[in-house]
Amino acid sequence: MTRNRLEAFSDGVIAILITIMVLELRPPAGHDLRDLAPLLPRLASYLLSFVFLAIYWNNHHHLMHAVERVNGRVLWANVHLLFWLSLVPVATAWMNDASGVPTPVAIYGVVLLLSGAAYFLLTRALLALHGPETRLAAALGADWKGKISLLAYLAAVPLAYVSIWLAISIYVAVAVLWWVPDRRIERALAAHEHRARTDRAA
Amino acid sequence: MTRNRLEAFSDGVIAILITIMVLELRPPAGHDLRDLAPLLPRLASYLLSFVFLAIYWNNHHHLMHAVERVNGRVLWANVHLLFWLSLVPVATAWMNDASGVPTPVAIYGVVLLLSGAAYFLLTRALLALHGPETRLAAALGADWKGKISLLAYLAAVPLAYVSIWLAISIYVAVAVLWWVPDRRIERALAAHEHRARTDRAA
Amino acid sequence: MTRNRLEAFSDGVIAILITIMVLELRPPAGHDLRDLAPLLPRLASYLLSFVFLAIYWNNHHHLMHAVERVNGRVLWANVHLLFWLSLVPVATAWMNDASGVPTPVAIYGVVLLLSGAAYFLLTRALLALHGPETRLAAALGADWKGKISLLAYLAAVPLAYVSIWLAISIYVAVAVLWWVPDRRIERALAAHEHRARTDRAA
Amino acid sequence: MTRNRLEAFSDGVIAILITIMVLELRPPAGHDLRDLAPLLPRLASYLLSFVFLAIYWNNHHHLMHAVERVNGRVLWANVHLLFWLSLVPVATAWMNDASGVPTPVAIYGVVLLLSGAAYFLLTRALLALHGPETRLAAALGADWKGKISLLAYLAAVPLAYVSIWLAISIYVAVAVLWWVPDRRIERALAAHEHRARTDRAA
Repeated sequence: MTRNRLEAFSDGVIAILITIMVLELRPPAGHDLRDLAPLLPRLASYLLSFVFLAIYWNNHHHLMHAVERVNGRVLWANVHLLFWLSLVPVATAWMNDASGVPTPVAIYGVVLLLSGAAYFLLTRALLALHGPETRLAAALGADWKGKISLLAYLAAVPLAYVSIWLAISIYVAVAVLWWVPDRRIERALAAHEHRARTDRAA
Repeated sequence: MTRNRLEAFSDGVIAILITIMVLELRPPAGHDLRDLAPLLPRLASYLLSFVFLAIYWNNHHHLMHAVERVNGRVLWANVHLLFWLSLVPVATAWMNDASGVPTPVAIYGVVLLLSGAAYFLLTRALLALHGPETRLAAALGADWKGKISLLAYLAAVPLAYVSIWLAISIYVAVAVLWWVPDRRIERALAAHEHRARTDRAA
Repeated sequence: MTRNRLEAFSDGVIAILITIMVLELRPPAGHDLRDLAPLLPRLASYLLSFVFLAIYWNNHHHLMHAVERVNGRVLWANVHLLFWLSLVPVATAWMNDASGVPTPVAIYGVVLLLSGAAYFLLTRALLALHGPETRLAAALGADWKGKISLLAYLAAVPLAYVSIWLAISIYVAVAVLWWVPDRRIERALAAHEHRARTDRAA
Repeated sequence: MTRNRLEAFSDGVIAILITIMVLELRPPAGHDLRDLAPLLPRLASYLLSFVFLAIYWNNHHHLMHAVERVNGRVLWANVHLLFWLSLVPVATAWMNDASGVPTPVAIYGVVLLLSGAAYFLLTRALLALHGPETRLAAALGADWKGKISLLAYLAAVPLAYVSIWLAISIYVAVAVLWWVPDRRIERALAAHEHRARTDRAA
């Protein structure tokens, strides 16, 4: 069982998820410029979810490039991640339908939290398979970004009931944190590709 | 005619099917936590169909990796499988719309039964093409999983009229049975890849 | 400009078209077995369009495998084909909405006719680029299937006003005609792959 | 981080965007030929957006083939482009809903303008990474097409309030301008492939 199959399936599902959210963006009811105003919060939340899914796609690829083999537990962990990611569009739509109400904002955070937890479980499943002395283990390191994100989401969910803007600010901050490509994995991959190329040349 | 084309087409269709089901998950009408409650059965049936399609995708890939060539009959058998799988989203939606009513649960079982039968016909078409002394035949063996699944679905459809929970339990049980990757095919593939690598090295 | 890019784009669009038609299959209004009856003509027309698009996907791949290069005219011809194919779902939906009325059945035939004509133009654009002494020209030959299909659709469109079942029978007959893989192209490809393998071995 | 991942993700998103627009094409309310008439402007705007997205897909591929490496800024620039492209379906739908009203036509132009600007920023990010003495820089040259398009869109947006047909004519003219494959990049790629083949042969 190769990692290529896992990547192709995950790519397909994430690309479709990121695109079907645009189906939620209905044209405004009126025909004038002022009719666009109620669309703006909807557009902003679409942008947030768009970036959120793009980051998962990006990090998933980074992660998989350091992977050498997969097993049944990894497969389960990956489908588990895709399941929570697939709830992002409906969570976004609920947040849009109910502007200013805390529960949909909190539930959006719950979906982000469970997606993050699923990603964390995926990295654990991969580490358990590859062992502590491998390139993957070195590349992931202490995985402080994963842990900080989970703590941030955990804080944001109850804080949505204090102020939805506080919760949304935390979501945006985590997105910014993750967007930066994971340099540790990138460095490990660069070293690996260099080694592979050297091996082939030898 | 290579098997790669068959795989790419099937992958595309299954990835899209698994994702469009999420379009059925409409945000709740209200804005409070209690408004989520009516969404839970819908979410559970989405999860079941999500896992169901993920298993077909997984087993399809396992199967195709043991395949050496395809012909017109295999193509027909594959499109036939994709047709029944493509009815999973609408069967899921009907089951969701009518909670507690037996007929939609039975019809969901019929779609699973016909999908299973189509998969079985696909393996027969492949076996007819490859012959009894091939790696594919050895890998499939007696195919007891395929046969048990068909019997289970056949039992579940009428049992839905006794109790929908009995039928649904059978669907879940078959999903669990299939999720376990088919070790016979995996072993055959591992042996094949080993042989291929040895050949290349020689 | 390679043919691979053309193939990947066309594959993506056709796989999505074939799958989004399933969104038209809404669950029945009632919850009983008899509520399925009005769904059956809808299911039959979905099946026809499903097979129709699968055939185009299949023949497109066969055609592209005999192609050595593409140019701007081929690109235009291919996008032109995809445009008419993309109207199949809406034409199918109209035929479904108006059971027994001739115009939607005729318009469905017009979309099939224009798709067929676009495919014919694509083969002409490819022949103009490759010349009469090439493998592609030999593989296509007199292209009687393409010409017969166009004539059949041309006849079916007015015949829909005599009897919609006559027109639908013609659509089904052409689908059956095309489903049979194009053996001329297949033979040419097999010869080519044989030659390529011989070249590599030399 | 390779350009292949960027290409695969962008391909997936653009192929889905181009296809989901067809979901906007609802079958006519009536069942006669005259009921098709109100569909024609909708069909024409669908065709325009279809061609528009096909051109971006095409130029994106041309551009990426001249690229040797990508970095974080390129990734951001690419997601930024995909975001604006993903608004084409909703902008098309609004223009369709409000035939003859200037604002939706102007907003459609704004989406085209921001997509064009995002594409321009992507080329700048790539140039900044590759330097002025590279094949990419030579291939892009003065990029007069990108600059003319931006100016044309900038003019079309206010002109939509004078006459929507004037604005739409400008959109069509820019589409025609871009459809012509970028010969400079094509020439550079042909030279590159020639060189690569020569290197391999050496």
